[in-house]
Amino acid sequence: MALTGLSFLDRLLGDAEIASLLSTEADLAAMLAFEKALARAEAAVGMIGPGAATSIAAAIDRFTPNLARLTDAALRDGVVVPDLVRQIREAVGGEAAAAVHIGATSQDVIDTALALTLKPVFDTFEERLTALDAVFDDLIEQFGDAPLMARSRMQAAIEITVGDRVSNWRMSVLRVAEDLPRVRAAIEILTLAGAAGTAEKFGGSIDPVRAHMADALGLGVPDYVPHADRGRIADLANWLSRLTGTLGKIGQDAALMAQNGIGAIKISGAGGSSAMPHKQNPVRAELLVTLARYNATQLSAIHQALVHEQERSGSAWTLEWLVLAPMVETAGAALLHAQSMLSAVERIGDPR
Amino acid sequence: MALTGLSFLDRLLGDAEIASLLSTEADLAAMLAFEKALARAEAAVGMIGPGAATSIAAAIDRFTPNLARLTDAALRDGVVVPDLVRQIREAVGGEAAAAVHIGATSQDVIDTALALTLKPVFDTFEERLTALDAVFDDLIEQFGDAPLMARSRMQAAIEITVGDRVSNWRMSVLRVAEDLPRVRAAIEILTLAGAAGTAEKFGGSIDPVRAHMADALGLGVPDYVPHADRGRIADLANWLSRLTGTLGKIGQDAALMAQNGIGAIKISGAGGSSAMPHKQNPVRAELLVTLARYNATQLSAIHQALVHEQERSGSAWTLEWLVLAPMVETAGAALLHAQSMLSAVERIGDPR
Amino acid sequence: MALTGLSFLDRLLGDAEIASLLSTEADLAAMLAFEKALARAEAAVGMIGPGAATSIAAAIDRFTPNLARLTDAALRDGVVVPDLVRQIREAVGGEAAAAVHIGATSQDVIDTALALTLKPVFDTFEERLTALDAVFDDLIEQFGDAPLMARSRMQAAIEITVGDRVSNWRMSVLRVAEDLPRVRAAIEILTLAGAAGTAEKFGGSIDPVRAHMADALGLGVPDYVPHADRGRIADLANWLSRLTGTLGKIGQDAALMAQNGIGAIKISGAGGSSAMPHKQNPVRAELLVTLARYNATQLSAIHQALVHEQERSGSAWTLEWLVLAPMVETAGAALLHAQSMLSAVERIGDPR
Amino acid sequence: MALTGLSFLDRLLGDAEIASLLSTEADLAAMLAFEKALARAEAAVGMIGPGAATSIAAAIDRFTPNLARLTDAALRDGVVVPDLVRQIREAVGGEAAAAVHIGATSQDVIDTALALTLKPVFDTFEERLTALDAVFDDLIEQFGDAPLMARSRMQAAIEITVGDRVSNWRMSVLRVAEDLPRVRAAIEILTLAGAAGTAEKFGGSIDPVRAHMADALGLGVPDYVPHADRGRIADLANWLSRLTGTLGKIGQDAALMAQNGIGAIKISGAGGSSAMPHKQNPVRAELLVTLARYNATQLSAIHQALVHEQERSGSAWTLEWLVLAPMVETAGAALLHAQSMLSAVERIGDPR
Repeated sequence: MALTGLSFLDRLLGDAEIASLLSTEADLAAMLAFEKALARAEAAVGMIGPGAATSIAAAIDRFTPNLARLTDAALRDGVVVPDLVRQIREAVGGEAAAAVHIGATSQDVIDTALALTLKPVFDTFEERLTALDAVFDDLIEQFGDAPLMARSRMQAAIEITVGDRVSNWRMSVLRVAEDLPRVRAAIEILTLAGAAGTAEKFGGSIDPVRAHMADALGLGVPDYVPHADRGRIADLANWLSRLTGTLGKIGQDAALMAQNGIGAIKISGAGGSSAMPHKQNPVRAELLVTLARYNATQLSAIHQALVHEQERSGSAWTLEWLVLAPMVETAGAALLHAQSMLSAVERIGDPR
Repeated sequence: MALTGLSFLDRLLGDAEIASLLSTEADLAAMLAFEKALARAEAAVGMIGPGAATSIAAAIDRFTPNLARLTDAALRDGVVVPDLVRQIREAVGGEAAAAVHIGATSQDVIDTALALTLKPVFDTFEERLTALDAVFDDLIEQFGDAPLMARSRMQAAIEITVGDRVSNWRMSVLRVAEDLPRVRAAIEILTLAGAAGTAEKFGGSIDPVRAHMADALGLGVPDYVPHADRGRIADLANWLSRLTGTLGKIGQDAALMAQNGIGAIKISGAGGSSAMPHKQNPVRAELLVTLARYNATQLSAIHQALVHEQERSGSAWTLEWLVLAPMVETAGAALLHAQSMLSAVERIGDPR
Repeated sequence: MALTGLSFLDRLLGDAEIASLLSTEADLAAMLAFEKALARAEAAVGMIGPGAATSIAAAIDRFTPNLARLTDAALRDGVVVPDLVRQIREAVGGEAAAAVHIGATSQDVIDTALALTLKPVFDTFEERLTALDAVFDDLIEQFGDAPLMARSRMQAAIEITVGDRVSNWRMSVLRVAEDLPRVRAAIEILTLAGAAGTAEKFGGSIDPVRAHMADALGLGVPDYVPHADRGRIADLANWLSRLTGTLGKIGQDAALMAQNGIGAIKISGAGGSSAMPHKQNPVRAELLVTLARYNATQLSAIHQALVHEQERSGSAWTLEWLVLAPMVETAGAALLHAQSMLSAVERIGDPR
Repeated sequence: MALTGLSFLDRLLGDAEIASLLSTEADLAAMLAFEKALARAEAAVGMIGPGAATSIAAAIDRFTPNLARLTDAALRDGVVVPDLVRQIREAVGGEAAAAVHIGATSQDVIDTALALTLKPVFDTFEERLTALDAVFDDLIEQFGDAPLMARSRMQAAIEITVGDRVSNWRMSVLRVAEDLPRVRAAIEILTLAGAAGTAEKFGGSIDPVRAHMADALGLGVPDYVPHADRGRIADLANWLSRLTGTLGKIGQDAALMAQNGIGAIKISGAGGSSAMPHKQNPVRAELLVTLARYNATQLSAIHQALVHEQERSGSAWTLEWLVLAPMVETAGAALLHAQSMLSAVERIGDPR
């Protein structure tokens, strides 16, 4: 689900860059990469012939999916993979067709594709977090010594400096950033476990096949069956919501500082009103609060989906699909808005 | 946010008909209808000249928005209306341009447009609920006397009939349907209250202007200021989640009945597996559970947005935008899936 | 779950009056009232002898439960009723013992007891809502003409009056209050449907038994099987969260108005700080926001519990038990805090 | 909030051991430990006299709080600390009274007390996780080779063994257990940062005071200001919900396996029914699902509280108080129920 389906709210609520990394095209490309890597790995261990792997790889390289058929099939099967495999087999043709997808199950494809599409997303997040840290640095350098009334329980407490508050903002984001490597490593794994998690069609070849595929795809090999154990997804969602929550706190602070009568921040390019052209609305600050509360809500659905019954739950797994991509995209949008807002600060600190 | 941005999951998770009723095009059409009705109403009470109203109506009838500009402006202003009004004024031109949007504020436009776009959605829901009721009727007629083991706490209890269980399903949906008129009446209202809810630019004309517009748009006139009082949105979201929750219970029942070893329902056209072609997966039954849990989660965000500070909250209001449309679309999808699933029942009742 | 288990946070977060209406004692009393009314109704239609009903009623009137045994049994059975019935039978003794609880199931007892315990809660809410309305009235009378800067998107908009804002507060609460009769009527029903909702042990006597019991208990008789259809609980939870959300919006407004630098409200008796004795913290205003966000969250669990599988779900039903009582108690607490806060307003309106 | 306020549901939904670790008594003891350690640390660096520290420590050792007064004061101040400090000062008396709580703020006391009360909770969790692992081990040893039909999308897939499924259960819990040291280290920190996070009353002494206190209390010293950065609380809540979600998946599996008609598990001591004495209800299995869905919901509130405005938010912080303790207690209860349920397995695997 791309939030950019929003049209004129695309730039307000969505993140075009992240949306494209999670698009249908990106998802299909990742699923095809899985099938190609699987064929090559199975050829490497002798499960299929080398010619079959070459044929499959070549067919995948020139493959164009019938999207309408995939859409219908996804409704029937609850997942796009069975028909995608059928289409790939048709594209491969001949004897090699039967060598496509051997030993794998739909969830192997979908979950590995998720890992692959998230890799560049995490890279983008890391870049944005680094850039945001530099913005905090600039703010502290430029305005750090300016006096600022600290506020607790929304009331004036004692005078601190802008540097005190902005350093706290910075540290809170840094701490989220520091946790990303752990979270992404748990996500960037190969899922290859077959119909019921026992890889029953691979026999003794499963370890070398996994190693080969993981190497080709740039993924780790988990020491557990990931199908029904969704803890890593819960941890990712928690991280995304920690990120938006941390930025939402900064947005809330900025909106409070920007109030007429408080005047502790001036942000250029603030938004206008259709009824009151004189107003300077702290739009991005408010948005950061919105995105924080959005993801704080979505997180609950991902944790509901931990109750993933038996070897594979259709209902719990599909719930992840509905919720995770919007969480990722809003996290991306929050990073963009935070950087834009903080880069546009003209003055911060109590008015003199 | 259209869930149909999902592409090959469009038909699985989305509802194309509802999505089109909530599309950017539909939203813009509703906002333009607001501005046209406002101009005519203001002309009727003499706030603007009759020629100005005619010019505005004509310009709106041939108006094509600059969507890229709207998108940029929505990011800046946090709402699309200020630039839309500007574009309408440019299209009107001349002296009449100044007569556009007089006395109204962005929220008047957006909230009224929401009411207008939801009207046909509610009509569609009513039709689908009626159709679904007929399906229950058929099931009861066809299989009502068949024996069925009742189950409490997931264990066999005593023998009942298919009619007992399906009547309960039917009544539970009927009760949701019976509540729709109340909920939709609260939503289908005109919002026209100006910058701060006091309609300060209308003077004594506010009542006739509202009556005129409400009549033209087929909406009610509320006896309260709807800007910051979002109770009606909370009630709508509650209704949507009651609907999906009620259908989700039916889906959960169906999935449990379809289990191998239980065999109390047979649904034709059940989904296949990429690894196990023999399987008959109760895809739509599972989806109903998914959509129920999705909306049960989203509802929380709508209620968080009740904390709508002062005369208008950017952050709380925007949170509604992110959440409400997907809730409506998933409710539509759940109705479609429930009808499809129940229409495809080949047998229901304990196996003999 | 009584929030008053909080001890020194009892008065801050809980509501002793509501807690006592939902206490173990109140719950047991309601369950005993069910069993007594059931025996009498069954005697009235001849299902049990009149002497048995008299014996049961007398035993119940002098009954003291063995709470430790009930607690152990509740863990084993997942519900307290089987052992409670056993204890009542022991107390009745003789032949009449077998006449206890005939035809009823645990859920009949628990759900009817919920209806009974909530009746005085709803009465209390109605009284508090009336009292709160009077406080709004006083505020408007006393300060209604005072100027107040309206704020949208947290920025100064145009000048309105205190009466404008407080009337909006009042109307928003009134609208919630107006919905209570509908919500409570749906809750205040008799549940008597037996093991699987078919009242299979009552034969043609079910209607008169229900009528007799409902009359004795002051409850309505539903035209549907309420066991697995939890829509009324969802609607109640929605109402509770609408109430706290509406009061939370008022609390948020008050906290924003109380800010140093804004000074648009002065509330006597505001809280102190351990580090800064000069501070005047708007504690109750903040609490209203807390309670709103709490219930907005809990509501999601109640809607998750709509997926109540088959004739009775242990897991979904128990989830209601964990969540509903705290929602009711926090709603009560929010009403108390709103009234206290608004009654303590010394001045409202922009400072001169 | 102690879930054990539930009375006859105490053992079903609560965890008496965890509740006592989080009781008012435990909380007060931890707050007193903070004040004692603060006085001693301040004496060590010369901020107060050694005699004052000795007097304070002695007074705290024999201190009995006036709980009624604390309760009233907590309502007024929004937090119990100001009056607790006042009571301690009264108990100390004389000149030393003024040396109590110097430089600290309420949040320093409360957040440090939370860290202290959670330490033995985490120890308990570790013990229970170790014990649970042994139960999995036993199950695998005893029944690991038994055949079991794998199920995906609630349908029979292929035959696996009990060992396959139970190993997945075990690994999923192990992975949660492995994450506990990271999560608890982030929680077990000293908070000492003064009114606005700048420790303004300590001057250069802040580092040695913190080191001294942390050492005395067995806590870490954070390299950031923890007052308004609640990421560690969000991570803890995520961990708790991951735990209950993981156990909820196992409970859901067990409830599905226990169905009549499936019969893949037999658990001794399953619960009875008031209407159908023959039934064997998988009560603890259902409860695990309940507790999972409960915590998946609560988690959302903790993440909403990440939007913790300025230097200290009354409303966000109080929201944590309402939600965190029940999350901890239900996590404890889930561990107890999982161990009891799995220890009571008499047979697991498909019936022959």
